[in-house]
Amino acid sequence: MKWEVRISYKKGVQDSEGESTLSGLRALGFRGVERVGAAKVYLIEGEVSREDVEEMCRRLLANPVSQDYTITEVK
Amino acid sequence: MKWEVRISYKKGVQDSEGESTLSGLRALGFRGVERVGAAKVYLIEGEVSREDVEEMCRRLLANPVSQDYTITEVK
Repeated sequence: MKWEVRISYKKGVQDSEGESTLSGLRALGFRGVERVGAAKVYLIEGEVSREDVEEMCRRLLANPVSQDYTITEVK
Repeated sequence: MKWEVRISYKKGVQDSEGESTLSGLRALGFRGVERVGAAKVYLIEGEVSREDVEEMCRRLLANPVSQDYTITEVK
């Protein structure tokens, strides 16, 4: 099976990478950009169930204090 | 407009983060995992066209030597 895990910042948590990317884009002249958010994606393949992937998120992939995760099966 | 940019490694380029995540998951006991790939996502909002976002990828977001990017409009 193949799973896509997306890790993003919880609402209210500072997304430093998104903010610095926004600054960088504006410095390059992209004046129309209003907001940039950054997220991480992991594609996980193998004999693993959704419950396994949830456990991976809790134990390694996501920071439970500051990050949310979504898990999608890739067909 | 809102755009999603996904940055991943080109085929044949070492995905160090994916590989170290695979090692970490196996060390935690997830023996069924066979492969992990890592990618980065940026959500870009503002008065920007697809051509603008392509230019952002070329000039800042992606490394043209080692990374590919895909751009999707988020409705």
